[in-house]
Amino acid sequence: MPTYDYDLFVIGGGSGGVRAARLSAGLGKRVAVAEEYRYGGTCVIRGCVPKKLYVYASQFPEHFADAAGYGWTVPEASFDWPTLVANKDKEIARLSGLYESGVANAGGETFHSRASLVDAHTIRIENEDRTVTAEHILIATGGRPNPHVALPGHEHCIFSNEAFDLAELPKSIVIAGGGYIAVEFANIFHGLGVETTLIYRGMEILQRFDMDLRHRLHEEMAAKGIRILCHTIFERIDKRADGRLAATLNSGETIVADQVMLAIGRIPNTENLGLEAAGVKTGVRDEIIVDSLSRTNLDNVWAIGDVTDRVQLTPVAIHEAMCFVETAFKDNPTEPDHDCIATAVFSQPEIGTVGLSEDEAAKRFENLEIYSASFRPMRHTLSGRQEKMLTKLVVDAETRRVLGAHILGPDAGEMAQLLGIALKARLTKDDFDRTMAVHPTASEELVTMYRPSYLVRNGSRVD
Amino acid sequence: MPTYDYDLFVIGGGSGGVRAARLSAGLGKRVAVAEEYRYGGTCVIRGCVPKKLYVYASQFPEHFADAAGYGWTVPEASFDWPTLVANKDKEIARLSGLYESGVANAGGETFHSRASLVDAHTIRIENEDRTVTAEHILIATGGRPNPHVALPGHEHCIFSNEAFDLAELPKSIVIAGGGYIAVEFANIFHGLGVETTLIYRGMEILQRFDMDLRHRLHEEMAAKGIRILCHTIFERIDKRADGRLAATLNSGETIVADQVMLAIGRIPNTENLGLEAAGVKTGVRDEIIVDSLSRTNLDNVWAIGDVTDRVQLTPVAIHEAMCFVETAFKDNPTEPDHDCIATAVFSQPEIGTVGLSEDEAAKRFENLEIYSASFRPMRHTLSGRQEKMLTKLVVDAETRRVLGAHILGPDAGEMAQLLGIALKARLTKDDFDRTMAVHPTASEELVTMYRPSYLVRNGSRVD
Repeated sequence: MPTYDYDLFVIGGGSGGVRAARLSAGLGKRVAVAEEYRYGGTCVIRGCVPKKLYVYASQFPEHFADAAGYGWTVPEASFDWPTLVANKDKEIARLSGLYESGVANAGGETFHSRASLVDAHTIRIENEDRTVTAEHILIATGGRPNPHVALPGHEHCIFSNEAFDLAELPKSIVIAGGGYIAVEFANIFHGLGVETTLIYRGMEILQRFDMDLRHRLHEEMAAKGIRILCHTIFERIDKRADGRLAATLNSGETIVADQVMLAIGRIPNTENLGLEAAGVKTGVRDEIIVDSLSRTNLDNVWAIGDVTDRVQLTPVAIHEAMCFVETAFKDNPTEPDHDCIATAVFSQPEIGTVGLSEDEAAKRFENLEIYSASFRPMRHTLSGRQEKMLTKLVVDAETRRVLGAHILGPDAGEMAQLLGIALKARLTKDDFDRTMAVHPTASEELVTMYRPSYLVRNGSRVD
Repeated sequence: MPTYDYDLFVIGGGSGGVRAARLSAGLGKRVAVAEEYRYGGTCVIRGCVPKKLYVYASQFPEHFADAAGYGWTVPEASFDWPTLVANKDKEIARLSGLYESGVANAGGETFHSRASLVDAHTIRIENEDRTVTAEHILIATGGRPNPHVALPGHEHCIFSNEAFDLAELPKSIVIAGGGYIAVEFANIFHGLGVETTLIYRGMEILQRFDMDLRHRLHEEMAAKGIRILCHTIFERIDKRADGRLAATLNSGETIVADQVMLAIGRIPNTENLGLEAAGVKTGVRDEIIVDSLSRTNLDNVWAIGDVTDRVQLTPVAIHEAMCFVETAFKDNPTEPDHDCIATAVFSQPEIGTVGLSEDEAAKRFENLEIYSASFRPMRHTLSGRQEKMLTKLVVDAETRRVLGAHILGPDAGEMAQLLGIALKARLTKDDFDRTMAVHPTASEELVTMYRPSYLVRNGSRVD
């Protein structure tokens, strides 16, 4: 005899929340999801999906240029930003609909409303001005761009959310940030013909990635014409009389541009959720604190995805959702596995990476073998494009285990995905060596680097 | 005290021969290579390399068309075949030079001459009208297209060799064959605007590949506008007064086209090599017979690559070369490993495959789980292209081992290369399941197919 309205109430209709709802409903549980904006969450609505579509859009000028070496004469192409925005909107509306109908088809209920906790078992559905009760509550409200309120003039800036839907394509943009979002957008805008400057407070873009990838990507982006300023922050942003923005840098330089975009991190969506009322603990970054099973300090309240600020990636949120369902409803306590996650940066050229960077590995292992190759992808022999590809393996010399695999170049993300299987299974360099090459591919380099490029002993490179 | 002029004489300057020569010379051996045509062999001169360059060339019209959905207006592009041929020539001349200089740089000698055996230790260098002696002789003369002399009018036909260098791009072509060469050229010519017909005597193109890939590729090629006729052979080829060719099929139909290409298999280059004189045995397909160490019936005469008709792939010839050097010169007898070779067909869409097809696995394993996904690659959501991608895993239900992985779609070859590592290491479906997805990629489908699409028990599908 159920004493609650629902077995599970999910707050947030993103990738994690919807997966948890669908699976739980599929088990016969009485499930509801509340989403205040659009179903699909960051990934579908203003993250992965529109981002990758815009990456595709921004790559066409290079395709057109590359064609000449292959015998093609291509008259100058023109680009219409509103067409891209509208076609993107159509696609994400379709996906958003699939997310919502997926819940319904599995037997769950969906609310178009903000929802907040009243107590550990009671949820307020704001738009309907009523409360419901649930045995389990799952918070999957995601995150949002850090608004950087300390920056004078921050109110003139856009964030990744707005960047997808600008009324018109700016002629120039300055982007602050060194993470993948800043880097991806810098490439997108540059590819679409926007004069692009990227400023980053750190020493080099893409902190925590392998240093060779970071340097090489920086060089390639600069060679394309993107201006990159490291060790640089905004002092202030001013709106000029002509409507353009003047960004004053710590160097004293002022850059005038049509748009200024901030991509300096993301923060968890934990405000006005009733967490205090219900007694759910949050941490110093405002994230919901969870244990290894995604459970909050309350027994029946759980949280997954970006709101927990563990690993901010869609597949991780989905994985946490699947583990949560095992734990909460299948009597099979399952901890999400956050180890050895392959990931991609859809920069141009693209990055794919899994496992430890050389620097990180050097801290943990006494003897490393580094295998590295730099080469022109075959496509660019005739295109004449100078861009080079980089493949790198970090190997523990004692066990021969491949600790890290790093790629810069076309399809690096696809490659990282499948290398992820090998690294997750802790395969050795011998397993790579035993694998026959597929010719001609770029990834064959990853199985034909027979001799170390150099060794690292006790943290120091030995040639 | 050496009693021979050379420690190793290699006949044939292709991928296998050159690798063997380079490595042996690098060990301090006195090495020579003779090549009658151009260094680089089939792969560089008239195979893998020019083929893939032409594939790139032929894909541009789809890039141009796909751009519209992303907001680009591209005026009609024009194509100049001689530019492609000339630029291809430049690149293969560069690579051919690298192959030859690679031998020289390692300390070997190169001859531009046909060479043949006089006896087990004596080689005749034809252009210099002299003989030299060698302790070891390696035959790596490769193969060539089967000329199909039984076909009336075969002398009017071209082969893959000539297809790269036609004086002009034909308006129409008929290609005979169902292997990867026929299929790849059909796609190349079609992509470049040539009216293309593919005829194949068998039931379905690409024998021995997984049936789902074969059917789906057939459908996709037909949807693009390539006419494919299976169960069909040429009866005769006639040259018409207007210079065009009339190909009469076994169905009675006659197809008139500018060119007729035969791609019905390749045969080993064993003629006029002095094999009989030296007493080297050949087999029923004219291949040189070798043991598991690539040794012929003569102790000091070896053969690798296509001339042995084992597995006709460049990386296999190179692998056999490396094993030969271990065996002959490093006192480390090493058998080439021909098991579980990943491979690609650069059709459009592309095929990547490793391990057993479903049908082959069903013959060998009692219980299979088949995981299959068919989806539109994200790029085509906005391009509007209807082409779907296919990913398929064949899993032994008892051991959970992944026996085969099959992909149809963009970058399938790159994916097959890296899946090759996993399959060669005999990883299980659980290893795939444990791997976090990289989003958004196409290859994430390969690690997120959690439930079998169907089972196969004792050779029969069970839904």
